[in-house]
Amino acid sequence: MMQRAEIIAVGSELLLGGRVDTNSLFLTEGLASAGIEVRFKSVVGDEEADIINAIRTASGRAEVVVLTGGLGPTLDDRTRQAVAHATGRPLRRRAEAFEGMRRRLAVWGRTPTAAQLRQILIPSGAEVLANPVGSAPGFCLKWKGCVLVALPGVPSEAKQMFAVAVAPRLTREAAAQGRQGRIERRVLQTFGLPESDLDLQLRGVIPAGSGVRLGLLASPLGVLVSLTACGSGSEVNKKGDGVLDRLVKGVRKRIGAYIYAEGDETMEEVVGRHLVSSRLMLAVAESCTGGLIGHRLTQVPGSSTYLDRVAVCYSDQAKIELLGVTTHLIRRNGAVSAEVAAAMARGIRLRSRAGVGLSVTGIAGPGGGTAQKPVGLVYIGLNAGRSGQPSLIREFRFHGDRHSIKLRASQAALELLRQWLVRYGPRIRS
Amino acid sequence: MMQRAEIIAVGSELLLGGRVDTNSLFLTEGLASAGIEVRFKSVVGDEEADIINAIRTASGRAEVVVLTGGLGPTLDDRTRQAVAHATGRPLRRRAEAFEGMRRRLAVWGRTPTAAQLRQILIPSGAEVLANPVGSAPGFCLKWKGCVLVALPGVPSEAKQMFAVAVAPRLTREAAAQGRQGRIERRVLQTFGLPESDLDLQLRGVIPAGSGVRLGLLASPLGVLVSLTACGSGSEVNKKGDGVLDRLVKGVRKRIGAYIYAEGDETMEEVVGRHLVSSRLMLAVAESCTGGLIGHRLTQVPGSSTYLDRVAVCYSDQAKIELLGVTTHLIRRNGAVSAEVAAAMARGIRLRSRAGVGLSVTGIAGPGGGTAQKPVGLVYIGLNAGRSGQPSLIREFRFHGDRHSIKLRASQAALELLRQWLVRYGPRIRS
Repeated sequence: MMQRAEIIAVGSELLLGGRVDTNSLFLTEGLASAGIEVRFKSVVGDEEADIINAIRTASGRAEVVVLTGGLGPTLDDRTRQAVAHATGRPLRRRAEAFEGMRRRLAVWGRTPTAAQLRQILIPSGAEVLANPVGSAPGFCLKWKGCVLVALPGVPSEAKQMFAVAVAPRLTREAAAQGRQGRIERRVLQTFGLPESDLDLQLRGVIPAGSGVRLGLLASPLGVLVSLTACGSGSEVNKKGDGVLDRLVKGVRKRIGAYIYAEGDETMEEVVGRHLVSSRLMLAVAESCTGGLIGHRLTQVPGSSTYLDRVAVCYSDQAKIELLGVTTHLIRRNGAVSAEVAAAMARGIRLRSRAGVGLSVTGIAGPGGGTAQKPVGLVYIGLNAGRSGQPSLIREFRFHGDRHSIKLRASQAALELLRQWLVRYGPRIRS
Repeated sequence: MMQRAEIIAVGSELLLGGRVDTNSLFLTEGLASAGIEVRFKSVVGDEEADIINAIRTASGRAEVVVLTGGLGPTLDDRTRQAVAHATGRPLRRRAEAFEGMRRRLAVWGRTPTAAQLRQILIPSGAEVLANPVGSAPGFCLKWKGCVLVALPGVPSEAKQMFAVAVAPRLTREAAAQGRQGRIERRVLQTFGLPESDLDLQLRGVIPAGSGVRLGLLASPLGVLVSLTACGSGSEVNKKGDGVLDRLVKGVRKRIGAYIYAEGDETMEEVVGRHLVSSRLMLAVAESCTGGLIGHRLTQVPGSSTYLDRVAVCYSDQAKIELLGVTTHLIRRNGAVSAEVAAAMARGIRLRSRAGVGLSVTGIAGPGGGTAQKPVGLVYIGLNAGRSGQPSLIREFRFHGDRHSIKLRASQAALELLRQWLVRYGPRIRS
């Protein structure tokens, strides 16, 4: 029987939504590596009674419960108290927690304040988890056949503490209990085909009874296709790798042209990898994406080795001055046109002496659209300039709000560059 | 007694995290307008037993339960079945649901497929909620003193259906039951003071027994300070507005210098507003932020009226060519220096003829740091060039990973510009 986990995020502000839940990402993955499946996630505010309720509910339906948040120094931070009450383990000042805090603060010439000392109150019998990044220690205890872990809400802290102290412990326990295997999962990232079309194309690719689940998740960056072998039988676990490899091959055969990455590699990382191996410098001219392509490319450490510059030319004047687009061209075709996209890609490449120029011009909305040129119309240009390397222009019509259109346009531009690099990159290198 | 709500998001992919929870945003706000407080949020996969478990748990601790997702046409979509089982109300084909679907598909010359017909199975006794956007109808039923609402997972569909069909109904019921009022909430957005310092400065600002809760939420963009009047007594509800106004004033008195926005206005919107009213054009020179400032500024509709251009000068060569920074200056001070930041801001302003130039240069890491210039060192420059408007240079040392440092640097730059605009903008206009 596979162990079940529940994640409880504590914090009244989290109930509001609108934020990216970063903690679940590595917790789900880390728990899966120990063969533990996250089945429930809960968000609860700072009310102690509600946290206690969430802990009791979770311990009734999962064997591993991971709480994040509510370990700070303020009176609002009630996770420690809630765990103490729910489990009947009173809070005690713990020497090892104090020592860690004292040493960290000493580096900055400070001593713990009364508020900070609240953070070293730990339920009795719990193991203290040192926080190498921030001030709040976490803890871990066993209660009614359930492992209860409390981590800070700050993702960078929670991530390190989980990796260093929690994951190895869970894996060890799984081995000690003779539980085998991990949840195998493959993710393929696609762009260019709507979810409903992918669903049609992938119909029947997973044979019934294989114990593998196919998942599709759409976003402006494309559709994520996941294959998860999480059957309760050991059969899937034993031959899971082989089964998944074969199924992934089947999926690739059907929709390979739309797959830009496997696993959690981002489009900007893939493009960066290809630029490095082609030894090409890139220059980008953005209009409607407003800097998003530059921002995404520079999220990748080391991107300074292949990204020369980005010119965000929001005004016509900027397109003329920075890219050498002519007034005539803009007047005749409009700033959002295939002709201007081509001139922008060429202009940024020539002026930067980069090996390849990429450009985007379009209408992100909500205003600025016309019947001929509606909101969502985007032109993408790629200019290489060497013989045998064609320059490309593509027209797109994207749906959605301003942000979605910017995201889709940035993704389409990077995908065009990726396909071009896959095709012509090796020739350039050699 | 204030009614409590629980939101249940259904979908195995949601358990993975890493996505923005858009539905909670309008659901929490919409429910608050009807005087209903969201106390719990749950995420559950596609397993029917888990959805049933979540519904039972929720109905035990909330009077309003809103499910989103799992209403699609595939076999994975189990919300209908789970509600039927949990409540003992068998699924029935509903004529009104069929009629709505038939009519919508007829527009495209189609008839419902067998899979789509699954979507018109509705628990008996439930009210059908028409979906004006997509194919999945929702529904709403009363069960054991609890209102249970099922909406599609797609935010645009769920949002419309909630606004059109659910919110008015909940408000009507609240009025019929003699429940008054709504949850009043104020949000102040701050940048520049760490959470622990804010906590200290705000100690005692909310008198005990006022029924108002103070919340702090830190992110790389600053700390969000919220005041929520959600006492169970009608007293706070009756005079909530006055109480909150007074308390917000008290908070402003203590930390006003760090508040850049009230409500959900973003920094880029605030800056855009000031640029419009000052009739100033802006040009930006980014290095380590890589286009993020441009991306953020252009998230605001109409930003083309005040943003002339952004030059992302990742290479020294680009700084020299696009901004007129001299080789000598870079050699003497390094590309990450107050001198280069000043030259960048001046260069982009002069070359663009914008009224104000903003620049950022720094080390986003993880590589590239030295003992003298560690990762996180960032210089921000602002150049105005008219007499009486000083140019500014600021040095920052940010913590965190590459993405956090980029975010913090972009926020610090926009905040510097905002403060400058607040101070000198009115003079420019007049």
